[in-house]
Amino acid sequence: SRSINLAVIPGDGIGQEVVTEGLKVLSAVLPQDVKLETEEYDFGARRYHATGETLTDADLDALKRHDAILLGAIGDPSVPSGVLERGFLLKLRFAFDHHVNLRPSKLLPGVATPLAGEPQIDFVVVREGTEGPYTGNGGTIRKGTEHEVATEVSVNTAYGVERVVRDAFARAQARPRKKLALIHKNNVLTFAGHLWTNVFNKVAEEFPEVTTEYMHVDAATIYLVTQPERFDVIVTDNLFGDIITDLAAAVSGGIGVAASGNINPSGEFPSMFEPVHGSAPDIAGQGKADPTATVLSVALLLRHLGYEAEAARIDEAVSADLSERTGKPARSTSEIGDALAVRVAG
Amino acid sequence: SRSINLAVIPGDGIGQEVVTEGLKVLSAVLPQDVKLETEEYDFGARRYHATGETLTDADLDALKRHDAILLGAIGDPSVPSGVLERGFLLKLRFAFDHHVNLRPSKLLPGVATPLAGEPQIDFVVVREGTEGPYTGNGGTIRKGTEHEVATEVSVNTAYGVERVVRDAFARAQARPRKKLALIHKNNVLTFAGHLWTNVFNKVAEEFPEVTTEYMHVDAATIYLVTQPERFDVIVTDNLFGDIITDLAAAVSGGIGVAASGNINPSGEFPSMFEPVHGSAPDIAGQGKADPTATVLSVALLLRHLGYEAEAARIDEAVSADLSERTGKPARSTSEIGDALAVRVAG
Ligand SMILES: CC(C)[C@H](C(=O)O)[C@@H](O)C(=O)O
Ligand SMILES: CC(C)[C@H](C(=O)O)[C@@H](O)C(=O)O
Repeated sequence: SRSINLAVIPGDGIGQEVVTEGLKVLSAVLPQDVKLETEEYDFGARRYHATGETLTDADLDALKRHDAILLGAIGDPSVPSGVLERGFLLKLRFAFDHHVNLRPSKLLPGVATPLAGEPQIDFVVVREGTEGPYTGNGGTIRKGTEHEVATEVSVNTAYGVERVVRDAFARAQARPRKKLALIHKNNVLTFAGHLWTNVFNKVAEEFPEVTTEYMHVDAATIYLVTQPERFDVIVTDNLFGDIITDLAAAVSGGIGVAASGNINPSGEFPSMFEPVHGSAPDIAGQGKADPTATVLSVALLLRHLGYEAEAARIDEAVSADLSERTGKPARSTSEIGDALAVRVAG
Repeated sequence: SRSINLAVIPGDGIGQEVVTEGLKVLSAVLPQDVKLETEEYDFGARRYHATGETLTDADLDALKRHDAILLGAIGDPSVPSGVLERGFLLKLRFAFDHHVNLRPSKLLPGVATPLAGEPQIDFVVVREGTEGPYTGNGGTIRKGTEHEVATEVSVNTAYGVERVVRDAFARAQARPRKKLALIHKNNVLTFAGHLWTNVFNKVAEEFPEVTTEYMHVDAATIYLVTQPERFDVIVTDNLFGDIITDLAAAVSGGIGVAASGNINPSGEFPSMFEPVHGSAPDIAGQGKADPTATVLSVALLLRHLGYEAEAARIDEAVSADLSERTGKPARSTSEIGDALAVRVAG
């Protein structure tokens, strides 16, 4: 019989609330014969303040034994900027080699967008997750003096770029429109830019059916607000991907509905799924958070583990729920979770 | 008697067309007693193909003697990506220490925006122009092999950050709302991020009237489309500034109206003014380009040289022209220039 052994990391702020609903929907959608086991891990600000630890080797060993990880949100204003981000989130992405950071953007019917007109938005960003300016390379000399110099080194390898570019081509190939855009800044960041562009062009030869284009990251932000329908699949560097996926989330319904997967396609380490939004401490504990992004992250998780039908049921339930929201009073976090659980079970 | 000795660089694509109109409006707005001298320089793709040169030491010496530089656009698909950008545009910014890259965003009445509703947009981005990932530091090993590694080094100095941050505070102080936002990614790029944040907080003490906030660059893209009225002055790093000013231009009327100044506040070297749009080779030579961004760049140039009244007249003429466009047939580049010249003279 089948089973899913899930690591659950509620984390900080609204993390606990949204994860509870994500698990509710997951339980509701799974067939009877699939055994769901969950183990909760206490990471984030609480643990950091209590022990000074963010993510230990023992933690990594424990997480490694799961089939996948569901994360709520990590981050709290009481912790200095960068400590949990570098010490937990990025450490985990690097340790588990989550090189495919998958972020779909789809404007569902009935969902509000800041854009005028009725834009058609349905694309997915494949963001590289283990290289670029995120490596933590760099340093500071003469810190705190008027002669301080601080550097950040973006590290890009043919190995790292090729695997994520190939993943993106395969995803483009599998979609009806079969379009792939490379986003970079190869006219200024010429070393990394040429590597990305050359690898992209080389891999393109293996996918003759995929239509490709190249776009500078600055121009891409313009297209994302003026012609978002232009995009099908996007592949890009870690930092550019961070920036454009927040913009993409904003135009396609907001970060309340933006899901993401930190994927290790080889399966050597468990992949991690999380809403794009952060811990939102200002609304934590009030039942105000929208669990939809977490529920959609659960769909990505199911799809990754091979439960395509169940993932599709969640996507449909979310579509239906969102399309009926206009004009109705706001619901609490758990009310939305309940409604989605009913829909996926029904 | 007063005089302006201007270097004019039409450049590639639509550059020549828009610069012609910029100069037309400049001549029309200047009082009789101001002597305008212009010298045209042939930089860009033509020169590169003919001589292999982009910008020589002799060119820099010649440009240095002018009071300011007006540039149309540089860039052509016939030149490999990066050659003219690094070899001309960035070389000039670095050689003339254009560390304040000024990019105002104002949504003028009657101007179309991709955003829904009627957003109030009136802010200015102060983008650092001589550091960050733009320095050209970095390199490639094992080029073209499967073991290639390419790096890009972002270089940030207390000296470089402090002067641009102080400039931004002074601009915020001089505006009615007196707000300044620092945009960075200090939770991931912790070396550079901490330098920027610490310098920002230190300089803030000298400007107690200015209200400050910090924002990650990814979150900033969300606010730019959901709450653009939130911004008054923004200060940011070279690369983040590149990205968010294109987005800012898109939401506040498009790059057809986005002006910029590459400013050396000390006056040691001439400052350079240019539209944010590029050379648009697809519409070059057809009289289709909108010269408004260039005309607004001329206003920035005049303001920089102390001609505040004339700069304001251009701004007003552009506002009036834009507000009367809706529903009218499209005009040619020179028709728009003529109309603006009439207005500023009137
Ligand atoms: C919190 C931060 C480290 C993270 C990132 O920059 O990747 C977040 O912005 C994201 O997009 O998942
Ligand atoms: C053409 C390129 C070098 C330039 C930049 O990245 O600064 C342009 O995008 C700009 O914003 O002026």
